[in-house]
Amino acid sequence: MILTVTLNAALDVTYRVARLHQGASTRVLSVAERAGGKGINVSRVLHTLGVDTTVTGLVGGLTGRSLRQDLALAALPEALVTIGQESRRTVAVFDEAAGETSMLLEPGAQVTGDEWRAFTARYAGLLPSAKAVVLSGSLPPGVPVDAYASLLRLARGCGVPAVLDTEGEPLLAALPARPALIKPNADELVATTGLTDPLAAIEQLRARGARTVVASLGAEGLVAVTPEGRWRARPPHRVAGNPTGAGDAAVAALAVGLANGAPWQSVLARAVALSAASVAAPLAGSYDAVLYQRLRDQVAVGPFTQL
Amino acid sequence: MILTVTLNAALDVTYRVARLHQGASTRVLSVAERAGGKGINVSRVLHTLGVDTTVTGLVGGLTGRSLRQDLALAALPEALVTIGQESRRTVAVFDEAAGETSMLLEPGAQVTGDEWRAFTARYAGLLPSAKAVVLSGSLPPGVPVDAYASLLRLARGCGVPAVLDTEGEPLLAALPARPALIKPNADELVATTGLTDPLAAIEQLRARGARTVVASLGAEGLVAVTPEGRWRARPPHRVAGNPTGAGDAAVAALAVGLANGAPWQSVLARAVALSAASVAAPLAGSYDAVLYQRLRDQVAVGPFTQL
Repeated sequence: MILTVTLNAALDVTYRVARLHQGASTRVLSVAERAGGKGINVSRVLHTLGVDTTVTGLVGGLTGRSLRQDLALAALPEALVTIGQESRRTVAVFDEAAGETSMLLEPGAQVTGDEWRAFTARYAGLLPSAKAVVLSGSLPPGVPVDAYASLLRLARGCGVPAVLDTEGEPLLAALPARPALIKPNADELVATTGLTDPLAAIEQLRARGARTVVASLGAEGLVAVTPEGRWRARPPHRVAGNPTGAGDAAVAALAVGLANGAPWQSVLARAVALSAASVAAPLAGSYDAVLYQRLRDQVAVGPFTQL
Repeated sequence: MILTVTLNAALDVTYRVARLHQGASTRVLSVAERAGGKGINVSRVLHTLGVDTTVTGLVGGLTGRSLRQDLALAALPEALVTIGQESRRTVAVFDEAAGETSMLLEPGAQVTGDEWRAFTARYAGLLPSAKAVVLSGSLPPGVPVDAYASLLRLARGCGVPAVLDTEGEPLLAALPARPALIKPNADELVATTGLTDPLAAIEQLRARGARTVVASLGAEGLVAVTPEGRWRARPPHRVAGNPTGAGDAAVAALAVGLANGAPWQSVLARAVALSAASVAAPLAGSYDAVLYQRLRDQVAVGPFTQL
């Protein structure tokens, strides 16, 4: 089983409107609700791949209940821990006339010290059944900034390799706990290290403790710096669509690779293909299965010295 | 007890943002949730006035549960009927930089024939304890367009006077059931009758069945055309603030007047004072009690022949 952790889960609400009237009233044509958060997206992709997965994290209130209902609907096993405060929502307003989406991001629910300890205990209980663990996304208020470092140490104690996908302070504070793999994107590399050269940023993150860094460069594919070598993996062509969740699809493939101990070149090819196939699917956490099969053999993976 | 009916109740959510970024992501600084809908606002005002009131209407799903929780928090007695579909939300995004609010209005939940019959039965059971009934707002999908006519006839059968506050087709379809009082605003008069002269529009609505028409003209106060005479009531000065809910505050005072059989001049003075005092309060359904006391004796009420 691959365990995914989403500490700052959200109920993602999508409103379709004919045109968004700023400063006035807009009728919503349709409402869709979905359990959201990067770790949950990773589990959705794993589940579709036929890989056994469990979702954990923190949810609360009636929004948390909606979130759980949606996971049950998707047949995704969950071991979420309930907190006192209401889970957050994100509201995406898709404006049909402008062809653009405006996102409203609620602040995360405040987590108490007791709730954080309860989560840590639950997570520790799940680790012995996990072949890999994925720690994704931002930290909600109240959770210690070195939360991921604690979770990484617990995973290491059970011999479970971990993928960490976060940015900024939570990423920097986690590195001393030596994650097996981190997956920043180009913006996160700059934001976290302050360095504009991606390779220098990657090396800084490795020097601080990350064993492997796989950086996602959008339509340019992935760059991997590992103890076994450096690779660059590119999709054969650009895929049009919704890039939200493309990084989560890549993380799903990377976690499977870590769990199976597969060679980097094949893992990276799958990660790039899955990421591109997810861009072709309308929702984060889903992918175009036919496109994935086709792209898998077309991804060019080769060593590199310079970017 | 004054019974208020809100068939298309909503959970009103308010997001405060520093600036709304259309087509991009905006962090929400604070989230407030409140049971909303015109009838519910009327009950809030009645409750604050110390008048016994009960809220009824249709709610469903987890949003309906939040709505009920908020009424319980406000100590407002409710006899809401549960439907299968999820209650709607409205999202008001207050942009601090622009000083303006953008409203997103979800469509109402679909009501089945069985649910409508269950509501009608519940309503009929509540009428014998009511001194007046207030029917407010739009109709959700699935409810017959002449819904208010049926509810008015049931009220009349129990000798309970009714205030109807709606517009368009639901208002026109209700008039043959002869409501004791309707309270259109200036825009609703035009939208419902197609007439631009407010007095001609009022007379048309009375000819179609409304016994009394009290039209709200915003900061200009109220105009009442009743079987007992015609009055105009004006506040002594303009009140700055949030006009949402001002009409509901006026309806609360009018319903109290109908229930008590008070003379029109005093009822209209209170309605204008309460309406103006509600503009001074930040939320619909609340009012500035000190301002209300002060304005009550300052409202000018007099007969009129022309507007």
